[in-house]
This record gives sequence, C-alpha cells and structure tokens, in this order.
Amino acid sequence: MRAASLDALVVTHLPNVRYLTGFSGTAGVCVLLPSRCFLVVDFRYLTAARELARDLEGAPIAVEAVERTYEEVVVSVLRREQCLRIGVEAAWLSVSRFNAMAGALAAMAPFPLQSDHPVPVLVPTERLVERVRIVKDAGEVETLREAARRLSAIARRLASFVTPGRRERDVAVDLETAMREAGFSRPAFDTIVASGPNSAFPHARPTDRLLEAGEPTVLDFGGVYDGYCVDLTRTVQLGAPTEALRRLYEAVEEANKAAIGVVRPGVRPSAIDAAARAVLETHGLGAAFGHGTGHGLGLEIHEEPRVAREIAGLPDEPVEPGMVFTIEPGAYVPGVGGVRIEDDVLVTAEGCDVLTDAPKRIEVRV
Amino acid sequence: MRAASLDALVVTHLPNVRYLTGFSGTAGVCVLLPSRCFLVVDFRYLTAARELARDLEGAPIAVEAVERTYEEVVVSVLRREQCLRIGVEAAWLSVSRFNAMAGALAAMAPFPLQSDHPVPVLVPTERLVERVRIVKDAGEVETLREAARRLSAIARRLASFVTPGRRERDVAVDLETAMREAGFSRPAFDTIVASGPNSAFPHARPTDRLLEAGEPTVLDFGGVYDGYCVDLTRTVQLGAPTEALRRLYEAVEEANKAAIGVVRPGVRPSAIDAAARAVLETHGLGAAFGHGTGHGLGLEIHEEPRVAREIAGLPDEPVEPGMVFTIEPGAYVPGVGGVRIEDDVLVTAEGCDVLTDAPKRIEVRV
Repeated sequence: MRAASLDALVVTHLPNVRYLTGFSGTAGVCVLLPSRCFLVVDFRYLTAARELARDLEGAPIAVEAVERTYEEVVVSVLRREQCLRIGVEAAWLSVSRFNAMAGALAAMAPFPLQSDHPVPVLVPTERLVERVRIVKDAGEVETLREAARRLSAIARRLASFVTPGRRERDVAVDLETAMREAGFSRPAFDTIVASGPNSAFPHARPTDRLLEAGEPTVLDFGGVYDGYCVDLTRTVQLGAPTEALRRLYEAVEEANKAAIGVVRPGVRPSAIDAAARAVLETHGLGAAFGHGTGHGLGLEIHEEPRVAREIAGLPDEPVEPGMVFTIEPGAYVPGVGGVRIEDDVLVTAEGCDVLTDAPKRIEVRV
Repeated sequence: MRAASLDALVVTHLPNVRYLTGFSGTAGVCVLLPSRCFLVVDFRYLTAARELARDLEGAPIAVEAVERTYEEVVVSVLRREQCLRIGVEAAWLSVSRFNAMAGALAAMAPFPLQSDHPVPVLVPTERLVERVRIVKDAGEVETLREAARRLSAIARRLASFVTPGRRERDVAVDLETAMREAGFSRPAFDTIVASGPNSAFPHARPTDRLLEAGEPTVLDFGGVYDGYCVDLTRTVQLGAPTEALRRLYEAVEEANKAAIGVVRPGVRPSAIDAAARAVLETHGLGAAFGHGTGHGLGLEIHEEPRVAREIAGLPDEPVEPGMVFTIEPGAYVPGVGGVRIEDDVLVTAEGCDVLTDAPKRIEVRV
C-alpha cells in the first residue's frame, strides 16, 4: 500500500478478506487502512464478525453493518476516514461494483469542485494481498502439511477404489466420502475420475463409464482442510498397460521427478515448468502436455505461483521458502490414453519438501 | 442486444456461457453476435468444446482456441467480425479483464484516429442473459422438478440423521453422502447443520458440537442435479421444544405458507417477501427475520429473482410462469434458537407448484 501511495485498500476477494481478518463468510468486504481495518458484513454475519473482532488479539478490527448495499457502507467508511487514494482489487472487483463505488464517491464530492476538497480516486491494483499470501507462515505450513498427509493416506488406498466394472461416478463419490471421513470440510474442486479414452481429457468429469482392465484411470482429487486446499493426482493402471501407455507412465513420472528436483529458492516457476516439459519433449510428448506444471495452494485451490510457461505480463518471480504449489505434469494422447502424476511441494531453504506421500505409480493386477 | 444496440455481447459469466452454449467447463468465454456464436476455450477444453459444437443442432457455434490470453482471442474475433458496440457483463467482468480488453481493442485501432475507421467501444450491460434465464423452459422445469423430488426424499428421512449426541459435522457429511447417492453431482453450497445456540445464526457452519435433546437443529442443504440447483431447509426439534421455541416454529411455518400462498403471475417478489415478513411481525419477530425470503434457482444456487424487501435500483419485476425460487423465512433469537423452513416453488399460470415435498415440521421423540 505504501509503494502504491494508497490511503486505503478495499479488499473484495473473499480469500483475501479471510487472510487479513480471519472472517470466512460468503460475503464481506475489508477496508484496510495503514493502521486500521474495517470489516463490512451484512446481517447474516454480523454476530459472527463481532465475536471474531472481540476475540482478536493484536490489530483491532472494526465491524460495520450493511444496511442496503456494501458499496454505500464502504464509501461512507472511506469518507469518514478521509481517504483520497483508494486501491481496489482490479482482478476481483466487477465493473458494476467499481462503477457503484465510483458513483457513490462522486455523489459525495462537493459541487462545484473546490481545490481544497480533493476528490477521492479509485486506483486499480493487482496482487497486493496475493503477494503476501504466496509465502505461507508457520501455522499455514502446518495446516497444509497435515492436509497433505491426510490426502496422501487416501491416495495410498486408491487400488481399493479402482476395480474393473465400477462406474467413474461411483469412484468419485468414494473419494469424496473418504475425504470427508479424513476431516476435510469439502472437496476443493470437482473430483476427476477419467478412465480409458476419457483419461486423454485433462479435465474430464466423472461419467457413467465402467472401468475396464488394461486401461489407465486418472484420479485427481483434493480437499479443504481448516480452510486450506491440497490437491493430488495419481493414474491407476488396471492390469498390464500397452507398450504405448507404459511409455506415457514412464515419461510423466520422470517429468514429475525432474520438476520436483529443480525446486529451490531463487528458481523461477517457468524454469520448474521447463524441467517437466523438457523431459516430455525428449520422449516426443511435448504436444501431449498442454497445461501448466502446477499452481499455488492455500486458501484457494488455484493461487500463486503459476508454475507454467513464461508469458509476458504474467508473474514469474523466483520461488521462496514457504511457497506451496503442485507439480502435475501429464501427457494425453487420443487413442492411447492419459497419465498425470501430481504432488504438492513446500519450498524450503535448501530445496523442497514433498508434502504428498504416496507411490507415484499404481498398477493393479486384475 | 437489439435494445442495447450491440453488435456483440462478450459473455464471461460461466453459468451464462453454459446456458447459451451447453459448455460446462471451468473457463471459457462466449462471444455472441446476432446470428453467430463463438466459444473461446483453452487447451484443456478444446476437444470437449469441438465435440459439443459438432453434435449441436440448430444455431452453429464456432470454437476458438486460446493461445496466450482469453482477451486477445476475444478481441481478435471482435475485430474480424467488425463489431463496434461491444457489450460486456458488468456484474461479472473484473476491472482487470475490462482494462485488458479495452487495451487490446485500442492497440488495434488506427493511429491517428480516422473518421472512417470508428473505434470499437465496450459497453457495460446488466442482466442481458440473466433476464432470459429467469424463466425456465420445459426441459429446465423437468430437471428442477426431478431434483426437488430427490432432495425431498432425503428431507423426509431427516429424523434418522438427527439424534442426540451426534456431531453437527457428521450429520452434514451424511446429508452430502445422501445427496450423492440420490444422483446429485455435488452439494450446491456448504451444507448447514446448526444445533442449539448455533441455530440462531442463519449461516452457521457445521461444528463439532453434539446435538442435544430439547434443541432445534436447522438443516439447510441442496445439490446440483444435471447442472441445476435445488435447496431445502427443515428445522428438526429433538424432544419437546420450550414455549418460546414452539412460538418460533409456528410463526415461521405460518410465514412460509403465507408467502407460498401469494405466489402467482404478476406479483412482485417484494410482495412475496412482505407476506412472510408481515406474519413474523405479527408474532413480534420482525427483527428476528434479517434475511430475504428467497432466491431464484437454476444453473446457479442464487440467481434471479431476488425475493426480498424492495431496494431502489435492484430488480423487482413481477413473477412469471416458469420462474423457480425458494421461500425460506426464518426467525433467529439469541438465547432461544433459530428456525427456518425452506421450500422451492415453480410459478404456474394460476399460482405455484411447491416442488419440494416434505413435512414442514419435524419433531423427534427422544
């Protein structure tokens, strides 16, 4: 905020609101001043927000109640606090809400304008809170470690879920039930169970298709544990793979290990992606790997860093200790099948810890 | 689009993209022209989108692949099709994406500007697709009917989930498992199981608290069935209620029935809300009912109409046959408890059909 010369930052992205205040409702806005913080909530969350504020140690949070619209209350706080340069989160604020806030601010400005009454301005900002969130603190690391440990325990049982004749959809239900039983509050995303030809679609949805011997099944699942997301993929082979499939498995496992092997402070995410991509290209599978190598994990299932090919204008800052992200190379060949192997890693002072702990390849005899 | 004199509408809200094209991926943009439709997707969804377009009858959809960013491809389509007045969905487009599109359009404009090369403009629009979605067609009604039927079957079994000594969290898991077994692809929102003092919070989350005799437990749950969302709440009383609680149950049931009783074509949503509110006010519970009476159901769990107090500037258009929404009055009194009773209704030519079919009050002997 200092670097952007802001008097206030209006935080509308809910994971950022939660990060800053601990508030985890489905609606709420945080107005952050250099030394104060206002949490604007509606009737539904007023009691919860006040209890949260009361129990807080350290920096105080003042709770403000919405009467009619969020924008009105936010603007009245900004006026009361005489904020002039007001940052908004451009990636998360809609054009409608931006216009509503700008309109409410303008409506309060003196008319005609007076030079001794400067008019407040809304300043689009990018990644102010995200850049702080990207490095996890000790408490967050412990939560993510525990979550990954619990998810890995399910991954080690995958062979029992995947048997010939079962429906993809039923396997997905089993995985989600297992996550709930393991203490996850909900799946972090729609579980993927993609068998046979469906495995060649990186983001297939579970269907009524029955698993068959000889085929791969990609299982990509993750859960939210105490607010934090973890994510894991294994590809289970039912019976012996074809020679073409075996080459996919070997190449993807090698790519997963190569990418994990280069993770250490100072390396750019694009270089981690390049390590996985180079392996797959060596195997003639460059075109079969059409997505990025990974994404950050935390209060959101997809957050920074973006571990993918460098694209001008997108962040690619060197990784630092405390960052947590996935490594999930894959190869998808229509007519052959698809394989993806995904782990979650924590950057440490020397390299990285792999938080997920399950065999990278699972072949079930049938 | 004609009324807004648009050459094109850039549809970025995913439920709207699905509504217009049938595409249900987690990323994608639809560029809608008066007589054509472009679906812009990235690598992950290219095959699925092309198959969808190939299988379509009627209006054709052209699939466009993202190379670097969505905005670039969208703008190149708009340029190629010589669109000048380009609508965007202001409620759903972020300030960042708006600026990226505006920048890409400006970069392609001739410089210096020439009067015979008009510069394209982005026009913020509101509710263009939503206003169409609000009235369900026959196929959508059938899906919602079937979804509500399946959800009601679970509601009729609530007494078996709610027993003294069980944890709120475990009851929530049971409800979500029951929804999956009933054919729902996922919960439509985080299931609420709020017992005893927690029931006084309209949006409580399941905790480790154990259910106790004498107390109410609010159970608010819903699922996504073939893409469509349904939503149901019952409050289960374990053992005899106190006199104060009994009054809450009676008032809320009366409010639920009163609101359902006034639903018919031509009535404003605010009048439906007023019918529920009047009953609760008569019982001295006006202040205990702090949320709206209901919300539309469809591809989203919260969509139009908004059934709540009239607020200047928010839509309150008379309801029409084919609209589907919830009726969910509640009363929340700290120290006493909370009660909410929620049904889903379909507006018909004469009045409404209640799609949910389960006893409104459930008292379990203990």
